[in-house]
Amino acid sequence: MNIKMVTKTVGRLLKAEALLMLLPLVVSVYYKENILYIYGIVIGLILAVGTLMTLPKPETKTIYAREGFAIVSLSWILMSVFGALPFVISGAIPSFVDALFETVSGFTTTGASILSNIEALPKSLLFWRSFTHWIGGMGVIVFVLAILPKKEMQSMHILRAEVPGPTVGKLVSKATVTARILYIIYTVLTIAEIFSLLCCKIPLFDSVTTAFATAGTGGFSVKNTSIAAYNNVGAEIVISLFMLLFGINFNLFYLFLVKQFRRVFKSEELWSYLGIIATSILLISFNVYPLVENFGTALRQAGFQVISIITTTGFVTADFAQWPMFSQMILFVLMFIGACAGSTGGGLKVGRVIIIVKAVWRELRRAINPKRVKAIKLDGAVIEKDVVLTTSAYFIIYMFIIGISSLLLSIDNFDFTTTITAVVTCINNVGPGFAAVGPTENFADFSNFSKIILSANMLIGRLEIFPIMILFMRSTWKKST
Amino acid sequence: MNIKMVTKTVGRLLKAEALLMLLPLVVSVYYKENILYIYGIVIGLILAVGTLMTLPKPETKTIYAREGFAIVSLSWILMSVFGALPFVISGAIPSFVDALFETVSGFTTTGASILSNIEALPKSLLFWRSFTHWIGGMGVIVFVLAILPKKEMQSMHILRAEVPGPTVGKLVSKATVTARILYIIYTVLTIAEIFSLLCCKIPLFDSVTTAFATAGTGGFSVKNTSIAAYNNVGAEIVISLFMLLFGINFNLFYLFLVKQFRRVFKSEELWSYLGIIATSILLISFNVYPLVENFGTALRQAGFQVISIITTTGFVTADFAQWPMFSQMILFVLMFIGACAGSTGGGLKVGRVIIIVKAVWRELRRAINPKRVKAIKLDGAVIEKDVVLTTSAYFIIYMFIIGISSLLLSIDNFDFTTTITAVVTCINNVGPGFAAVGPTENFADFSNFSKIILSANMLIGRLEIFPIMILFMRSTWKKST
Repeated sequence: MNIKMVTKTVGRLLKAEALLMLLPLVVSVYYKENILYIYGIVIGLILAVGTLMTLPKPETKTIYAREGFAIVSLSWILMSVFGALPFVISGAIPSFVDALFETVSGFTTTGASILSNIEALPKSLLFWRSFTHWIGGMGVIVFVLAILPKKEMQSMHILRAEVPGPTVGKLVSKATVTARILYIIYTVLTIAEIFSLLCCKIPLFDSVTTAFATAGTGGFSVKNTSIAAYNNVGAEIVISLFMLLFGINFNLFYLFLVKQFRRVFKSEELWSYLGIIATSILLISFNVYPLVENFGTALRQAGFQVISIITTTGFVTADFAQWPMFSQMILFVLMFIGACAGSTGGGLKVGRVIIIVKAVWRELRRAINPKRVKAIKLDGAVIEKDVVLTTSAYFIIYMFIIGISSLLLSIDNFDFTTTITAVVTCINNVGPGFAAVGPTENFADFSNFSKIILSANMLIGRLEIFPIMILFMRSTWKKST
Repeated sequence: MNIKMVTKTVGRLLKAEALLMLLPLVVSVYYKENILYIYGIVIGLILAVGTLMTLPKPETKTIYAREGFAIVSLSWILMSVFGALPFVISGAIPSFVDALFETVSGFTTTGASILSNIEALPKSLLFWRSFTHWIGGMGVIVFVLAILPKKEMQSMHILRAEVPGPTVGKLVSKATVTARILYIIYTVLTIAEIFSLLCCKIPLFDSVTTAFATAGTGGFSVKNTSIAAYNNVGAEIVISLFMLLFGINFNLFYLFLVKQFRRVFKSEELWSYLGIIATSILLISFNVYPLVENFGTALRQAGFQVISIITTTGFVTADFAQWPMFSQMILFVLMFIGACAGSTGGGLKVGRVIIIVKAVWRELRRAINPKRVKAIKLDGAVIEKDVVLTTSAYFIIYMFIIGISSLLLSIDNFDFTTTITAVVTCINNVGPGFAAVGPTENFADFSNFSKIILSANMLIGRLEIFPIMILFMRSTWKKST
């Protein structure tokens, strides 16, 4: 392990965080809040630590996959630790563990909160809280690659560790160019949403923060009752549409821009994603219809909630914990499926689910007829055996982590539903669960131990297991290669 | 598919069932019940159908893996259908779906019941109900192989499909000899338990039926409150001990008999099984200690419940749904793990869990260091890549089936806990779940649709997925090989 190179790169990423924290500082000036100095202190601290970390000169600049994993996991953890400080110092969230939970939830675009009165926070903190979604959505490393191209960084190893999905979203040969294209699409879509929300008469501050939370598929709202607070059909449609878009593989947007429409329309993942959404909306609409005034309302609520949950955003317009169990179970399954690979959404990812389903089907066929084994194809191309193996392993580790985390969480003695869904909603970066962590509840009542477990789950989910797990493996920290 | 050969073999197995039904007939004569004629009718019916099925002459007697799967799944389904008839005709369980659920639960050694007043049933029906556990535990096909050796049957294909575990328990080269050894060990252990229970002053009828349920790791009791009804520490210890034994791979008993002690003590699965049990008992004992009078009681309840659940027997001496969530969650995890491969227990099997954990660990290592890939070993021997692949696929399909079944079950609108744990307890052949399917409850309130889904889950769990899944695949029924 090239520890010096890891330290140096993490230090560099921390400096980027200091830079990003200038934005809430500006917001606090604009709203004439008296917490300006807090951002000053934290930015100063981050810069100091970042500079210290970039001091040592590494003997070699070569990094491999495991250095990439270490960089990604360490920088996400440190960014969350420092990102939590404004909440603690301002007294908005006095407990450090609570603030850490909230910040990890922000960066990982989960949107699970420990706050019961969100609206009581100063505007600049609300801005920072939503902004962490936007940073975490596309990834801070992708951001750094986009703005600070460094030739010597073997950037693909790092990009690979941060971008969600079973295969790397390599648009063009160079990682820095890929990163820039991704960020341009991301920014343009975010601005488009801000304007659309303004057109629906949502205030500017709310439009910006909501767009951040949508873009990162995070789900933090600046209102206590989430999107339901606006009771604005237009805004709900705009948000649904953008959640849907941010749940799509960004590669497809790029292909669309370079006019490769054929390849876009051939995407099995896209069609499966849309198919699952349409089916779920219809099933839930019919299921909740008897509970609401008319089918339109059922469709409106079901449509918003299905898209919000499958994209793992977690915005709420209806208390779905009151829906019939069939609808709840559909949402529960959608939490696992998640959005498309290469999007800002969490969950297993539709692409992974497709690969797993195909692999499993092949195994069944092999059991009856061992001689006839066919390769698995996606979008017409054969999927390498290694990808299939890693994807299967991914699913299994993921289920194991859910099991172990639920066991640890159960020490808090919440009910079965709360325990299981808290873990599932956190590891999939969704936000709300059921029962005591339902859409109208929050995560405040858990013990500090559980909050740390859930924070780890959010990081594991966002960084797709390997980077975090590898931190705990002895061989990672061995001197020799 | 050699359909004629499948039909013929299934017909032969049905005749074996008719033979086995003579036992409850004898019991009904002994207790002077007036339902003797019912067994007569059902035995006659089974013999008629069995004879009709054995009439066609197959052109070739060759069978392959898929014929093996088809024979196993079809014979288990038909045996359950006919085995349910005495309950229906006698009026003890008027609904056919209920009776089918109860019988499938019996044969699959699940022990989930729809009866609220078990003690109201005639003795001979209670006997038949418990006897299905004993038949299902080791498998009816193994039974037929043991008593009716037929040279022309490629028996290994069938044995492989019925005996639980990731690898075939091939003791000796010939399947019929293997089957006979298995049944001798099984019978001797069952008789030993009957005598031990008699020594603890349990009445003969209860001793026999309880031993049947223990041997098959089933869990049906002839008492409404299960083993708690006897309030007999000696009996609880005897039952715990035998549950523990029946959860061990029968190959180890054979190796023990032929004095290969070294190989027995080298078994990773055995030590893991015992380790998991010891750890779980200790954790639960400390967890429930504050709720009971003394640590001895905590240990007694925890010990019995842990062994009962991990072996997937499902006997109850304490209402564990009242325990703290941590203890409940441990039991929930144990339901998944299950007993050892090649035992009569259900669940994933400890051996499979070991293979999966090792495979996953290797994948994590591969992610950091792609060059250094080591083979997975169990008991010192390398596990073939195909076994690892099939085991991983097994786990994934199993989780998918749990997901889909929960979704279908949720239409009944029970709470989340009930819905999930009903599926989990049935697919793992345990018996009790939590909430509305907890240890003091039963499965009566589910709709017929849900009862059929749960019955399918029990069969899928007992026959380890492949035989049942393959019934639904088009290519299974194609004429050509």
